[in-house]
Amino acid sequence: MAFFLPYHLQIQFVEDKQEFSRFPTKTGRRSLSRSISQSSTDSYGSAASYTDSSDDETSPRDKTQLNSKGTSDFCVKNIKQAEFGRREIEIAEQDMSALISLRKRAQGEKPLAGAKIVGCTHITAQTAVLIETLVALGAQCRWTACNIYSTQNEVAAALSEIGVAVFAWKGESEDDFWWCIDKCVNMEGWQPNMILDDGGDLTHWVYKKYPNVFKKIRGIVEESVTGVHRLYQLSKAGKLCVPAMNVNDSVTKQKFDNLYCCRESILDGLKRTTDVMFGGKQVVVCGYGEVGKGCTAALKAMGSIVYVTEIDPICALQACMDGFRVVKLNEVIRQVDVIITCTGNKNVVTRDQLDRMKNGSIVCNMGHSNTEIDVASLRTPELTWERVRSQVDHVIWPDGKRVILLAEGRLLNLSCSTVPTFVLSITATTQALALIELYNAPEGRYKQDVYLLPKKMDEYVASLHLPTFDAHLTELSDEQAKYLGLNKNGPFKPNYYRYKHASKIP
Amino acid sequence: MAFFLPYHLQIQFVEDKQEFSRFPTKTGRRSLSRSISQSSTDSYGSAASYTDSSDDETSPRDKTQLNSKGTSDFCVKNIKQAEFGRREIEIAEQDMSALISLRKRAQGEKPLAGAKIVGCTHITAQTAVLIETLVALGAQCRWTACNIYSTQNEVAAALSEIGVAVFAWKGESEDDFWWCIDKCVNMEGWQPNMILDDGGDLTHWVYKKYPNVFKKIRGIVEESVTGVHRLYQLSKAGKLCVPAMNVNDSVTKQKFDNLYCCRESILDGLKRTTDVMFGGKQVVVCGYGEVGKGCTAALKAMGSIVYVTEIDPICALQACMDGFRVVKLNEVIRQVDVIITCTGNKNVVTRDQLDRMKNGSIVCNMGHSNTEIDVASLRTPELTWERVRSQVDHVIWPDGKRVILLAEGRLLNLSCSTVPTFVLSITATTQALALIELYNAPEGRYKQDVYLLPKKMDEYVASLHLPTFDAHLTELSDEQAKYLGLNKNGPFKPNYYRYKHASKIP
Amino acid sequence: MAFFLPYHLQIQFVEDKQEFSRFPTKTGRRSLSRSISQSSTDSYGSAASYTDSSDDETSPRDKTQLNSKGTSDFCVKNIKQAEFGRREIEIAEQDMSALISLRKRAQGEKPLAGAKIVGCTHITAQTAVLIETLVALGAQCRWTACNIYSTQNEVAAALSEIGVAVFAWKGESEDDFWWCIDKCVNMEGWQPNMILDDGGDLTHWVYKKYPNVFKKIRGIVEESVTGVHRLYQLSKAGKLCVPAMNVNDSVTKQKFDNLYCCRESILDGLKRTTDVMFGGKQVVVCGYGEVGKGCTAALKAMGSIVYVTEIDPICALQACMDGFRVVKLNEVIRQVDVIITCTGNKNVVTRDQLDRMKNGSIVCNMGHSNTEIDVASLRTPELTWERVRSQVDHVIWPDGKRVILLAEGRLLNLSCSTVPTFVLSITATTQALALIELYNAPEGRYKQDVYLLPKKMDEYVASLHLPTFDAHLTELSDEQAKYLGLNKNGPFKPNYYRYKHASKIP
Amino acid sequence: MAFFLPYHLQIQFVEDKQEFSRFPTKTGRRSLSRSISQSSTDSYGSAASYTDSSDDETSPRDKTQLNSKGTSDFCVKNIKQAEFGRREIEIAEQDMSALISLRKRAQGEKPLAGAKIVGCTHITAQTAVLIETLVALGAQCRWTACNIYSTQNEVAAALSEIGVAVFAWKGESEDDFWWCIDKCVNMEGWQPNMILDDGGDLTHWVYKKYPNVFKKIRGIVEESVTGVHRLYQLSKAGKLCVPAMNVNDSVTKQKFDNLYCCRESILDGLKRTTDVMFGGKQVVVCGYGEVGKGCTAALKAMGSIVYVTEIDPICALQACMDGFRVVKLNEVIRQVDVIITCTGNKNVVTRDQLDRMKNGSIVCNMGHSNTEIDVASLRTPELTWERVRSQVDHVIWPDGKRVILLAEGRLLNLSCSTVPTFVLSITATTQALALIELYNAPEGRYKQDVYLLPKKMDEYVASLHLPTFDAHLTELSDEQAKYLGLNKNGPFKPNYYRYKHASKIP
Repeated sequence: MAFFLPYHLQIQFVEDKQEFSRFPTKTGRRSLSRSISQSSTDSYGSAASYTDSSDDETSPRDKTQLNSKGTSDFCVKNIKQAEFGRREIEIAEQDMSALISLRKRAQGEKPLAGAKIVGCTHITAQTAVLIETLVALGAQCRWTACNIYSTQNEVAAALSEIGVAVFAWKGESEDDFWWCIDKCVNMEGWQPNMILDDGGDLTHWVYKKYPNVFKKIRGIVEESVTGVHRLYQLSKAGKLCVPAMNVNDSVTKQKFDNLYCCRESILDGLKRTTDVMFGGKQVVVCGYGEVGKGCTAALKAMGSIVYVTEIDPICALQACMDGFRVVKLNEVIRQVDVIITCTGNKNVVTRDQLDRMKNGSIVCNMGHSNTEIDVASLRTPELTWERVRSQVDHVIWPDGKRVILLAEGRLLNLSCSTVPTFVLSITATTQALALIELYNAPEGRYKQDVYLLPKKMDEYVASLHLPTFDAHLTELSDEQAKYLGLNKNGPFKPNYYRYKHASKIP
Repeated sequence: MAFFLPYHLQIQFVEDKQEFSRFPTKTGRRSLSRSISQSSTDSYGSAASYTDSSDDETSPRDKTQLNSKGTSDFCVKNIKQAEFGRREIEIAEQDMSALISLRKRAQGEKPLAGAKIVGCTHITAQTAVLIETLVALGAQCRWTACNIYSTQNEVAAALSEIGVAVFAWKGESEDDFWWCIDKCVNMEGWQPNMILDDGGDLTHWVYKKYPNVFKKIRGIVEESVTGVHRLYQLSKAGKLCVPAMNVNDSVTKQKFDNLYCCRESILDGLKRTTDVMFGGKQVVVCGYGEVGKGCTAALKAMGSIVYVTEIDPICALQACMDGFRVVKLNEVIRQVDVIITCTGNKNVVTRDQLDRMKNGSIVCNMGHSNTEIDVASLRTPELTWERVRSQVDHVIWPDGKRVILLAEGRLLNLSCSTVPTFVLSITATTQALALIELYNAPEGRYKQDVYLLPKKMDEYVASLHLPTFDAHLTELSDEQAKYLGLNKNGPFKPNYYRYKHASKIP
Repeated sequence: MAFFLPYHLQIQFVEDKQEFSRFPTKTGRRSLSRSISQSSTDSYGSAASYTDSSDDETSPRDKTQLNSKGTSDFCVKNIKQAEFGRREIEIAEQDMSALISLRKRAQGEKPLAGAKIVGCTHITAQTAVLIETLVALGAQCRWTACNIYSTQNEVAAALSEIGVAVFAWKGESEDDFWWCIDKCVNMEGWQPNMILDDGGDLTHWVYKKYPNVFKKIRGIVEESVTGVHRLYQLSKAGKLCVPAMNVNDSVTKQKFDNLYCCRESILDGLKRTTDVMFGGKQVVVCGYGEVGKGCTAALKAMGSIVYVTEIDPICALQACMDGFRVVKLNEVIRQVDVIITCTGNKNVVTRDQLDRMKNGSIVCNMGHSNTEIDVASLRTPELTWERVRSQVDHVIWPDGKRVILLAEGRLLNLSCSTVPTFVLSITATTQALALIELYNAPEGRYKQDVYLLPKKMDEYVASLHLPTFDAHLTELSDEQAKYLGLNKNGPFKPNYYRYKHASKIP
Repeated sequence: MAFFLPYHLQIQFVEDKQEFSRFPTKTGRRSLSRSISQSSTDSYGSAASYTDSSDDETSPRDKTQLNSKGTSDFCVKNIKQAEFGRREIEIAEQDMSALISLRKRAQGEKPLAGAKIVGCTHITAQTAVLIETLVALGAQCRWTACNIYSTQNEVAAALSEIGVAVFAWKGESEDDFWWCIDKCVNMEGWQPNMILDDGGDLTHWVYKKYPNVFKKIRGIVEESVTGVHRLYQLSKAGKLCVPAMNVNDSVTKQKFDNLYCCRESILDGLKRTTDVMFGGKQVVVCGYGEVGKGCTAALKAMGSIVYVTEIDPICALQACMDGFRVVKLNEVIRQVDVIITCTGNKNVVTRDQLDRMKNGSIVCNMGHSNTEIDVASLRTPELTWERVRSQVDHVIWPDGKRVILLAEGRLLNLSCSTVPTFVLSITATTQALALIELYNAPEGRYKQDVYLLPKKMDEYVASLHLPTFDAHLTELSDEQAKYLGLNKNGPFKPNYYRYKHASKIP
C-alpha cells in the first residue's frame, strides 16, 4: 500500500524504530508498510484459544452472509459463531464494570446521539464492550481491525449479528486489510463524523482517500504511540484540520500499562515461556524507569536476586534506595540467569555480551521496541537456532552453550503474557470519554491540534474503576476544599501534577 | 484390578481421601483402583506441548519396534521419536546440575553396580536424567509409568533407544497400565533387587504377584504420600519384609514442594487460567500452613489484599504478625474476588458459601486433596456449568451470577501450572541418594521398616543444589565445631529438627 | 556468693558461654557468680526513662518504710513513688489484655487459692500485671529481682503498696541481690510452695539453703535459657525433686522472641544507636535461622542489599530461595556497611576480618551470646576505642579507619532496642498458665522432671492474644474434626510439631 | 521582631499554616514571629545527646572568648568544646563523601574564591562539613543559626576555632536570635555577596535592614518551604532584586525527604515514642502521596494491616493496586490501632473521630503541617492530658480511654526520629552546587527571579552520591546517545521529566 504513504513517513517509521509486524505469513509476504502500535499487539495467546482454526479456507470477501435480521452489511469469518462470541462479550463485561457503569449513567442522555463513528482497533471481546457502549449512548458504528491477526472471529460475528457493521477476520491479507478499512468508511449514504483509531491507518486512509470526509470529522481519538506520533507530525506540518485526542498518554492508562501491568506480566511471560523458578535466580534488569521498577519489584518479591543497570544517576540512586545493586552489565554478565531490557535504547545487550552469558540463561525485552537486544547479531552461521516452543528460541553456540531468547527480542509482555481485562477496561473507558468529550465540546474548546485528556476526565476514569476494588473515596468538606484551594469534585492535582514530583510552586 | 487389592486397602483409600484419577476416559471407564499420588499429577501442560498428538491409533502393544541396536525389549509409542526426546533430556540436564554432579562424583565407584532397579514414575525428561544417572552409576533399569497420561512419548523413545527397557506411553488404558508394570518386573532371567516407586502400584504388584521376588528386594524408595501411606500400613500389619525409604518427607523436598513452589505456582496457575490482575484483588486463603504461607506471601507481594482463615490459634497468630486479617470465611465471603483453599480439610468452602460469592469470583484449591471445596454440591440441576477453557469452568446461578471454578477443585498448581525443573531435580537427587544408601547400607542398618532419609543426606541434597545459585557455604573451624558440638561436615541440626513439616506420618 | 555454688556449676556456666552481667559497677565489683538469663536483659532503655535518678543515696536496706496500710514487709527504693508506678502498671495493662482476660476468666474459681509463690524476675510494669493476676487468682506472692539493674523502682513501690512483699530496687549490689532473695523466701510463718524463676538464682538459693522448703515445692516455672539449663543439669544429676516447667521453649514465646521480635528490633536497635539509613546499605547477616530470617526480611524490606552466610546447606538453600546471595564472609567483608551475627557460634567475625572492613562500617550481634564477634581481639593497644553514645563505640585503627561496634558485641536487641509489651504479655501469660497447671495438676501427671508446656496450653496462650488483633478463629465442624482426626478444641498439631524451634536441650 | 515584618506577611504565615516554633521557653515568651521552615526542625534527639547540658548559665553574649589563633570574631557557648566538635565533624564526614568528593574535585579551581557567604541554617556537624567545603572552595563564611534550639554547641565551637565566624548557641532567646543574625551580616569592612538561608529570616533581615547590601548580593540559596514561599512572594511583588535558587524542590532532595526518608522514619518515630509492635497492628494512613506511599510501604513490610484514605481517585487507584483497602476514615475508626496523617489538609482527624477511637490507639502526623489532626479540639476540660514521655501525651477520656498523641500533632519524623546524615548530605551538596552555580553564572543567565536547580545539576548531585552505594553508572555509546537524542553526559531526562509520567511528546 506504499503508493499513498508519503516517502518521508515510511522512512521515519523505520528510523523511529517502531515495532513492525513480525508475524510470519504463509505466503511469505510481510506487511512491511504497516506499523503496529505499541498496544496493538497485546498478547493473543489466550484469546486465540477461543478462536477456531476452521478448515474453511474460503475468503470472507467471497462469501455472502446474512445476520438473523437479514442484513449483510458486514464481512466476518462466520456469522454463525455469533452466539459463542456473545458469551465471550458477556464474560468480558464482568470485568469491565466501569464501562457498564458509564453506559448506565449516560444512557438516558444519549451523549453520542448523531455520532457516526468509524473505528479501527483490535476486535476482541473487550472492544465489543466498548463498541456496544458507544451504541448504547446513541452512536452508529462501523468497525475494522487494526491488526491482521488479532480479530476474535466469533466476537466479530456477534457484533455483526446485532447490527454493527464489522469488516474483519483473523488472518487477513494486506490487501484484505485495506479493503476492510475502505468498506468501513466508504458507505453509500453514510458519512462518519468521528474516528476512533489505533495505529493511525484508518486516519491516514480517510485523510488521503477521502479528504472531504476528513474535513468534516469532529474529532479523532487515537490510542497508540505510533498513531499519536503520526498525528503530531500532521499537526506540525499544518495538515491536521481536526481536533484529536491522545489517549495513550492519560495518567491512568500509563500507570497501568507500565508499572502495574509489567509487575505482573514479567512473571507471567517468563513462566509461560520457560517455567523458570524465580527463587534464587540472579536477574539483571537494564533500565530503572517505570517498566524497570515494575519488573524489579515483582522479581524481588519472588525471591530473585536483582541487579539494575542505569545511565541516569537519579534513577540509579532510586534503584539503590529500593535495594538493588546498580552495576554495569559487564560486571554481572557471566553470572546472571536472566537479562531483561527496559530501556527504550538500542543494543543494550550486545553480541559480545551474549557470548559471555551462562549456559541456559534467558534473555528478553520488556522495553519500548525490539532493538534493545542485538538479535540481528545472533543470526550468524556459527550459531544454531532451535525453536523449542512458540516464542522461545534456543540459540546454541558451537561449544553447546544455549541462550534462551524470548519472543525474538520483541516485547515479552505483549508476546508471551496476557493483558488483564481490567487494564483494557481503563483504555476503553478513556476512549469512550474522549469520544464523548470531542463530540460534545462547545465550538472552540478544541482547535486543530492534538490534546491530552483533561485532568478531570482522567480522574473520572479512575473513579469509575474504584468500585471494582470496593474502594471508597473521601470527600472534601467545604472548609477543607477552601483551605486547599480545590474544587470539591476535582481536579485534585494541578495539571502538571500528572508529572508527579512537581513542586508546589505558583 | 481390584481382584488383588485387599478389601481393607480399597476402603481405606476412599476414607483417606487420597486423590483418585479423575481423568475422563473415552470409554467411560474410570481407573478407580488406581490411587494417584500427590506428585504424580504434576502439571503436564507444557510437557504435553512437546508431545505429538499423532494420528497413529495403533496400540504400542500391537506393534513391534526395534531400536537402532536391534533390541525390542521395550514398548513405547514410537521409537523414531528418540532423537527429539534426546533433545528434551539435554535441555532438562541444564537445570539438573545437582544430578549431573552426583553422576560425576560417584561414577568412578559405580555404587549401583549390580543393582537391578524397577521403576514406576512419571516418564518425563527430568525422570530420564535420573534414570540415566542410575545407569551411569552401574544400575540396570526397567521402567514403567505411574500415570496413564503423563508419559512424554519421545522421552520414552529416547530411553529405549539407549537400552533402558521402558514400557509406557501417553494415554494407556487401565489394562495397559498393569500390563506395562508386569512387563517391567516379569523378565526371564532378570530379577529386580531395588524398587523405585511413585504411588505404590509397582510395589503392590510385586508384593502380590511375585512374593518371592519381593522378599529378595534390598530396598524400596517411595516418592508419594499415597505410596508412603501404603508402606506404613504394610509395616503396621507386619507384612513389610523389606526396608523402605520415604523420600516424600525429606526436608528439602517438603520445603520446595510447599512453601517455595506454591509461592510461584499460585500466581502462575491463576494467571494461565483466568488472566486475572492480582493488584487490588481481595483474596481469602483458607489455612495458614506452609502452602498457605506461600500463597499469601506471593499475592501480598503482587498487591492483592489477603485474608486468612485458620482453626489453629498459633498459625492464626502467625498470620496476624505477617500482616493478614484472620477472619471467618463468612465474614468476607460476599466481598472477596478469589478463594484459595490450603487446609487439607474437607468442605472448607460449602455450597451455602458459594451461593453468596460475588459474580465473577474465582474458587480454587491448593491444598492436599480435592475435597476442600464442596464441588459435588455444585452439580445440581439449577446450576449451569460452562467449560470456558481447559481446567476452567463457569458455574452459573439462575440469576446469571458466575463463579469461576478452577480444575474442578483439584490441585491448582498440579493441574494448571508447571513445576520447575529445579524442584524435580531435588526430588530426583533425593531418590538417587536413597537408592544408593539402601543398596549399599551394611547389613542391619535398615530393618523391615519405613525410614526417613538420614538428616545428613538431606543436607547433601541441599548442598548439591547450591552451585545452581552460586552459593558458597561457610565451613566451621575445628574450634567452632567443638564449641557447637557438631561434626564439621554435618549434620548441622539435631535429627528432630527435620521433622518440622512431617506431620502426616503415623 | 561463690561459697554455695558448687564448683562444677560455676565452671560449666563459663564453658557454656552464657551471658554474664557486664554492667560496670562503681565499686568495681562484678557480680561474676550471677548468670544473666537470655531474656533477663531485655532492654530497659525506655523503662529506665521513667525511673528517677534520685539523689537519695541511702540504701533501701537502711530505711524503714510503711505502705499506706501500715505494712513494712517489703524493701523498695521509695514507697512514695507508688502512685506513679500504678500509672505505669495501668498503661501496661492496656497492651496485656490476654492476661487481663485470663484474670477475668479464672477469677471466680481462684485456681491459685492456697498457692504461695516466690518470684524472681525483672520487676517491671509488665511483671506487675502478671503478679497482680496471680494475686487475683488466689495466690500469695513474695517477689525479688533477677537483675540488679532492671527494677522499675516506682513499680516495686506500687506492688508493695497493695501488699505484695517486694524486695528489689534498681542498682542493687551483689550482696543486696542475695539478701533480697533470702528475704523473699525466709519469712517467719510463711513457706512458699511454688517458684517462678528467671535465671535460676532463686531456685538455686532455695535448693541450697532451704532444702526442706525445696522438697515441698509443688512446681517450678522457669523462664530463661540459663535457668532451664540448670534445671536439666539438676535433673540429670537426679537432684531435681520437684516438677519444673520450661516456659522458655513454648512455641508461641519462641516465635515471638525470635522471628517477629527480631524483625522489628534489628531496625530499632540500629536506628537508635547509629541513625543509619537502611536504603541501599550492604548488609551481611551471619546465620539464617529464625533470628537471621527476621533480620534479613526487615532489612530487605527497607531497601538494604543483604548477603547471608551459613554453614548448613538446607538453611543456605532457604536463603537462596528467599532472595539472598549466600557468601562466605570474606567475599563481602570489604564492601559491606553492616555485619550482623545471628549464629549462636563463636568468633564468627574475627579480628582479621574486622581489619578489612570499610571505614564507618557497623558491627553488631543479634545471636545467642556475646562471643560471635571476637571483641576481645579489638582490645589491643594499637586500636583506640571511643565511646560516642551509650552502647556505641568507635574502634579506630591507626590509619584513622573507624568501625562502629554496638553494645560491645552483646545482644543488640536487648541492649539497644525495646521489647514490645505484647511480647512480654505472651511470656507472662505462659508463666501464669504454667503455674496454674503445675499447682492444680492431679497427683502423678508431673514427675520430678523438666516439662514443656502442653501443646494445648501453648495454643491457649495464642488464642488469648488473638483478640488484640481482632482475629477470628474458624471452628471445626464435627464432621471436619472427625475427618482430620482432631478434637474440635485442639490441640491442632501433633505434639512433636511444636518442637520446631526446640532449644538445644539434651 | 514584628516591627520590620510587613503586616501582610505575618498574616499570610498564619493563614498558610506554616509550622511555628512550639518550643516552650522558660520565660514563657514564644518566638511567634519566627516561622520555622519545614526542614528546619529536623529532629535533634540524637544530636542533643552530644550537647552538654552545662550548668554555665552565663549568656555567650556576656563572655569574651578567644580561639587558639587569638581571634574573637564569633560567639558560641564554649570555645573549649572545639575538639569534641571536631570529632563530631569528622564522624559526619564519613557519611558525606559526596561533599568531600566535591571538595576535592573543585578545590584546585577555587570556584568560590571571592565569595563572601552569610549563612543561616541549623548548625550541626553536617552543616559544618558544608561550611568547611565552602571555605575549601575559596569562600569566606559567617554563620548563624536558623533555629534557637538546634545548634550543636561543640560544632559551633569547632567552626569558630578554625576561623569561621559563628554566632549561635543552643537555647538562644528570641532577642539573641536576631542579634546573632545581625552580627553575622553587620561586619566592619566585610560585605556579603551570597546568602545561604533556611527559613528566610536572614534574607528578610538583610532585605529590610541593609537594603544596600541586599542589592549587591549575587545570589540567594534557600532551603526551606517557608523561605521559598517568602521569595516567591517577594518576586511576585517585584521586590526581589537578586536571583534566588530554590533547592527545596530539587528532585533528589524531594525523593529523599519524602518517599525514602519517610519509609524509615515512620517506623523509627513510632518505635522511639511508643515501643509499639508493628506486626498485626491495624493502621490507617490518610493520604497516598509520596509521604503516604513511604509510610504504607514500611508498615506493610513490618506486618501491619494498612488502610488508606484518599480524596483523589487516581491516587486511590494506585493504593488499590499497591494492595491497600481504600476506605473512609469513619469505616475503620473504631478498629484501627494507629492513625497517621499525610495529607497536607486540615482537620483530617476530627474530635468526633478521636472520640470513637479504641483505648490505647495512637494518633500522629507525617504530613505538611500541624493542622491535620484537630489537636485543639482535645484541649477541653473533660479530657485529661498526661505527658508520659517527651513528645508523647496520653489524652484520657472520662471513661478512662486513652488515646496516645505524638508530638502534639506536629511532624512525627522531625520531632521524634532522626534524619540520616545521608539525606542531609544530599541537601548540603545541592546547596553547595547552587552557590557555585549562582556565583559563577555568566551575566544574564539568572534574572531577578526564583529558579529551580538545573536538571543537570540535580543529576550531578545524584551521581556524587552513587559511590556511597558502590553503584556503577552505565555510559551511553555515541551511537546510543544519537539514537536517544541525548548528550552522553546528560541531562538524561527532559526538564519536565522530574515530573515522572510525562509522555514522550514533542
